[in-house]
Amino acid sequence: MTPNNPARRRRPTIHDVAREAGVSRGTVSRVLNGGHYVSPAAAEAVNAAIRKTGYVVNRHARSLITGRSGSAAFLLTEPQEKFFEDPNFNVLLRGCTQALAAHDIPLLLMIAGSREEQRRLTRYIAAGHVDGVLLISSHTGDPVAEELVRAGIPVVMCGKPMGRTRLAHVAADDRDGARQMVGHLVAAGRRRIGTVTGPLDTSGGVDRLAGYREVLAEAGLPVEDDLIVTADYSREGGAAATARLLDRRPDLDALFVASDLMAQGALGVLERAGRRVPEDVAVGGFDDSTAALSSRPALTTVRQPWDRISTEMVRVLLSQIDGDATSAVILPTELVPRDSA
Amino acid sequence: MTPNNPARRRRPTIHDVAREAGVSRGTVSRVLNGGHYVSPAAAEAVNAAIRKTGYVVNRHARSLITGRSGSAAFLLTEPQEKFFEDPNFNVLLRGCTQALAAHDIPLLLMIAGSREEQRRLTRYIAAGHVDGVLLISSHTGDPVAEELVRAGIPVVMCGKPMGRTRLAHVAADDRDGARQMVGHLVAAGRRRIGTVTGPLDTSGGVDRLAGYREVLAEAGLPVEDDLIVTADYSREGGAAATARLLDRRPDLDALFVASDLMAQGALGVLERAGRRVPEDVAVGGFDDSTAALSSRPALTTVRQPWDRISTEMVRVLLSQIDGDATSAVILPTELVPRDSA
Repeated sequence: MTPNNPARRRRPTIHDVAREAGVSRGTVSRVLNGGHYVSPAAAEAVNAAIRKTGYVVNRHARSLITGRSGSAAFLLTEPQEKFFEDPNFNVLLRGCTQALAAHDIPLLLMIAGSREEQRRLTRYIAAGHVDGVLLISSHTGDPVAEELVRAGIPVVMCGKPMGRTRLAHVAADDRDGARQMVGHLVAAGRRRIGTVTGPLDTSGGVDRLAGYREVLAEAGLPVEDDLIVTADYSREGGAAATARLLDRRPDLDALFVASDLMAQGALGVLERAGRRVPEDVAVGGFDDSTAALSSRPALTTVRQPWDRISTEMVRVLLSQIDGDATSAVILPTELVPRDSA
Repeated sequence: MTPNNPARRRRPTIHDVAREAGVSRGTVSRVLNGGHYVSPAAAEAVNAAIRKTGYVVNRHARSLITGRSGSAAFLLTEPQEKFFEDPNFNVLLRGCTQALAAHDIPLLLMIAGSREEQRRLTRYIAAGHVDGVLLISSHTGDPVAEELVRAGIPVVMCGKPMGRTRLAHVAADDRDGARQMVGHLVAAGRRRIGTVTGPLDTSGGVDRLAGYREVLAEAGLPVEDDLIVTADYSREGGAAATARLLDRRPDLDALFVASDLMAQGALGVLERAGRRVPEDVAVGGFDDSTAALSSRPALTTVRQPWDRISTEMVRVLLSQIDGDATSAVILPTELVPRDSA
């Protein structure tokens, strides 16, 4: 032990505070837990000793009493690359950080793309280091939500859960958003409307496709299987899906793409194929992320209310931590017309 | 209370395990803490009861004994936007996650751009929820390192700390990297070599500038102040600094830019100004990040050994958690010649 080494300086303990204040450990403990049965003079001495020693409440010990760590996790069960590529995560993370900050609660960001990382982080959370989890994951069969709930941890999902419906969640109205977009394309006279869907084990993938099918049927247009291709919400996935669609259906006159990032990929493919957007092929996206504005032409899209989604996720999580039952919030989406459709 | 609500199912306790195994709590506790003074039969019964009840060791309680939470933080004291913009963070984060995974330790990612967020997260860490911190922050006057060390938390910085030198850190050899790059430009016959530095309250900013100055002086070239502009490691900052340099010194024939992202900004400005790279102006970057390969022309740069940096950061942190003294590791950098210089 080198006493000079600041990294090893001993952390002050409750014993140090008691000694400094000239009271028992029990008195210090009572002051820390609300000050019941403590004289004002003793409480003052203890508080002065806490300041003087630099004592930080040992939350391990405190948590045994309160059961709280005073923190929340933003847990993403996607590979790290997705996190950096998809601009939606940046916006959602900022919103959640700010909403928690209003309650002075720190946000811990956890990226668990592999099953092993999920196990490691779930174990950490279940050990009581985190009071609740904002879960960003919507693939069916993702066991993380189930495991956290079983461990008694409050969880709020972003997006509608596919399997269990009792899970608290906050989602945008995907079906209605898709209906607005496809309705817009139909109203503009488009008749051979293709779609690039999200993964069909996510509610965004399923519900946006459902909205597309409904509007076509209502407009008396046939819903043809060769106009539908599924991709993975990535730019490259959107590009590959669009190339396949164009190959199958060169007569395509519109495309509803279930995310802006995939739509960016679609625009590149259409440009290389010599199709003008929107003259030859109208393109509609989904999200209204930064990708929509940086596209050329600027993307007509469906706005997800990210600010409200994050605020509501935090509100539902905190009320669940306080013992309220789980609840679901569905927020409206809105068509944002720009230049691509 | 709705008994059906899975979020509220009671977590199994050590009492449940003891009851199930038909032993005392003390016996369960001794098994959990290594199995000393416990008969093999009792240990087996306890382990079977743990599996049956689904008991998870209460790390609050365990931490009172071991003083460990079994986790490490990757703490970034930069605004969230930087985290998403700068490709270096992605690489460093993946490396640290993997190096910790080899020890089965989960990584908690913390972004603390504002002083308030820093306070909130430092308080959480100091409360014992995290065993050690990989600190990504190098601005002078950043109080986070100091606060963590004072709270007795092991800290390893990425990059050389500016003020205190006793802080454990892992850094690339910035000065030597800059010397290699500027030496390369001089050897190619460039004589009016400008530089865009990083912030001068970071060691990367200061040391890369020092390497630049040294090589010019050794080559008998004058070190002129109007050839030096400081920026903030961002793409836009690099673009603005380059525009200012070109304005001041239209005769510039080479540019050493202290990060690849800033160099990307510089290339855009040079292109718009009608300068050919490398024919009119040779451009050298620093980092060898994904930005270097996606640049047009591909960027000649200095490779920071990110894999080794993250491995070493984790190694130094774990050994500090185990009680070793702080240490510093400086890793070599390497010139990577491509098309821009």
